[in-house]
Amino acid sequence: MCQKTQDIAVQRDFTSETDGNRTSLNPSSVVVINLDQGDPTVFETYWRNVGEKSTITFKGDQSLSYFANAKNLCWFLEPKLEEEIRRLHNVVGNAKVEDHFIIVGNGSSQLIQAALYAVSPSDHPEPISVVAATPYYSAYQEVADLLRSGLYRWGGDAYSFDKDEPYIEMVTSPNNPNGVMREPVVNRPQGKIIHDLAYYWPHYTPITSQVDHDIMLFTYSKCTGHAGSRIGWALVRDKDVAKKMVKFMEVSTIGVSKESQLRAAKILGVISDSCQNDKSPDLDNFFEYSQHLMAERWEKLRQVVKVNELFSLTKYPSEYCLFTKDFTQAHPAFAWMSCKSNMEDCEKMLRGHKILARSGSRFGSDPKYVRISMVGRDQEFNLFLERLSSIQEITSGN
Amino acid sequence: MCQKTQDIAVQRDFTSETDGNRTSLNPSSVVVINLDQGDPTVFETYWRNVGEKSTITFKGDQSLSYFANAKNLCWFLEPKLEEEIRRLHNVVGNAKVEDHFIIVGNGSSQLIQAALYAVSPSDHPEPISVVAATPYYSAYQEVADLLRSGLYRWGGDAYSFDKDEPYIEMVTSPNNPNGVMREPVVNRPQGKIIHDLAYYWPHYTPITSQVDHDIMLFTYSKCTGHAGSRIGWALVRDKDVAKKMVKFMEVSTIGVSKESQLRAAKILGVISDSCQNDKSPDLDNFFEYSQHLMAERWEKLRQVVKVNELFSLTKYPSEYCLFTKDFTQAHPAFAWMSCKSNMEDCEKMLRGHKILARSGSRFGSDPKYVRISMVGRDQEFNLFLERLSSIQEITSGN
Repeated sequence: MCQKTQDIAVQRDFTSETDGNRTSLNPSSVVVINLDQGDPTVFETYWRNVGEKSTITFKGDQSLSYFANAKNLCWFLEPKLEEEIRRLHNVVGNAKVEDHFIIVGNGSSQLIQAALYAVSPSDHPEPISVVAATPYYSAYQEVADLLRSGLYRWGGDAYSFDKDEPYIEMVTSPNNPNGVMREPVVNRPQGKIIHDLAYYWPHYTPITSQVDHDIMLFTYSKCTGHAGSRIGWALVRDKDVAKKMVKFMEVSTIGVSKESQLRAAKILGVISDSCQNDKSPDLDNFFEYSQHLMAERWEKLRQVVKVNELFSLTKYPSEYCLFTKDFTQAHPAFAWMSCKSNMEDCEKMLRGHKILARSGSRFGSDPKYVRISMVGRDQEFNLFLERLSSIQEITSGN
Repeated sequence: MCQKTQDIAVQRDFTSETDGNRTSLNPSSVVVINLDQGDPTVFETYWRNVGEKSTITFKGDQSLSYFANAKNLCWFLEPKLEEEIRRLHNVVGNAKVEDHFIIVGNGSSQLIQAALYAVSPSDHPEPISVVAATPYYSAYQEVADLLRSGLYRWGGDAYSFDKDEPYIEMVTSPNNPNGVMREPVVNRPQGKIIHDLAYYWPHYTPITSQVDHDIMLFTYSKCTGHAGSRIGWALVRDKDVAKKMVKFMEVSTIGVSKESQLRAAKILGVISDSCQNDKSPDLDNFFEYSQHLMAERWEKLRQVVKVNELFSLTKYPSEYCLFTKDFTQAHPAFAWMSCKSNMEDCEKMLRGHKILARSGSRFGSDPKYVRISMVGRDQEFNLFLERLSSIQEITSGN
């Protein structure tokens, strides 16, 4: 069974306790706490506080057409969204955009596929290998192998890839699951690199440079929290690669929801506005607010882990952030945690305590690791801290 | 080059004259009239008139989550949209819904792929053939062959398919491009049928029965005109097939835009309301309005064609429509037109008169046929009638 479906199935096994994906508010120890997916509902409070500035209305006769801007290479991209994407990258300084085309997708999930399609040679007798350095994002293998494509296929851990043939390397930086900054590892002549920068925002990690790669993927979900909108974008230098990505998007979904795009333009605009010196006083700087929120959560988690001495968390170096103009650490969207003892299967052990996390084996890594979402709602996170604190010893689970 | 990209490229070759996809209002004969795609902007006037009833507002803190309803098999489907889809099918009586799961997709384009994925055997050594009876919808081949899948591949014209092996037949009814009602043609034991019912609505064709197939695909774009929203739905009888379609949707785009779904629920609700006997007097019955509009356009086109005696149009029988409770003909979203003379390439000939249509060869048929959109804006359609009337003789074009 597909991992993602397995995730959802696992979640649904507990629906009577979890009220669907939402962890129940009943503080009873039998409540299942689901931290397996990175559903970014932590930002709801910020957007509730923003109020009217982030509201958008659609009239019935609006956006009927397939076309957003037929003169653009990406003809289904709303001009206003393109404008706000470029603006936000300039405000934050995390990526260069002047030399790049922008392709919008139904989440960066779809753009990964569009990019694989665009850079795979069409005249190669065998599917090209797609690799990523372990621990790698669990979706890459699923995406690469979904349709048993003749163009590309999953080639496993980039650290072990030593074939003298064309390949594609997914470089995720900061990395999902462990939040560390990454560089390409294969470094052979026939490689194409796709940079997945989903978490390269100031609330998760110091902005140490303005990146400028050939293909850079971003997701609206993890930037603002609006995962339900299904918006991602690719910054693409090469025009032919951009055209092929557009072709993929045309055939697979004839573009992207106009409502989602126009709403995303509004929301991204609010974020950029919130970073201005002359901003409205009632509008909190989004990245300051979110960075503070993530830092607070990480501090609490580190404290619990320190006290019960059963687990380990990744440590992150202090680095100079060009955006905040200060030294700071990473506070990633996921915690990459391991059991200190001889516990071989941390996911199973936590499941015994009704905490759902994603096993390290899903990321091509050791099952003594788990990935835990740090971006859910407050009640859920606090319940998790409480439950983790209550674990006195590591057993093999129920 | 992919046909769709070729379409867009063709369109962009004329952007200086067409103002992007929109045909220029300059009545000069040098204006290019683009009737190649079925961009359903004809319905804009109806929705403008509906006004406030079809307006929807989103607050900033709404729909952040990936999940719409985690308890549902299709966990990304908004409950309100499911309710309105079922309601509309019951109001119109075009399809049975009680025994079916509903899967939402980014257009029926994506659901075609989800269905192919779901019904392809995973243990077959060779990709299963995907066939459709000529003239078939030009996108089927593109979709089937996009990633050179090991699960399925385009197998061509269903009329010629005589292999003794598993296959999938796409049955489009009413058919795109020629608007005729269709049945499966292969009729061998190892076949799976996917019914594409995009145009099975009263404004295009008489509703002669309430269909009840295993897999039925519908698109919001052609029902209401809101193509920019990227919404389609599948009615699926078998739970395992439905689960596999959901899996495809999870991996490819992690579901569907919540904004598009919630807006579609509103719009579909207005349509169902407009069909009630006790409806608001200022709300026109959507299907009566649209049926009248399509009928008027077809009458005008038939008149032009009758007068200049250079072209032929498909004729449609008068049939009893269970919805309007009257005898009526089809007035399809596309006209399937051919040149009466020895003209072998009708698309090329029309292009010489700056009318862009889609060649019959794109549908596996004879290039003496073209498919012409009947659902664009009024000015464009009227300009087309004027231009067609002005053609005095059929030449081989510029």
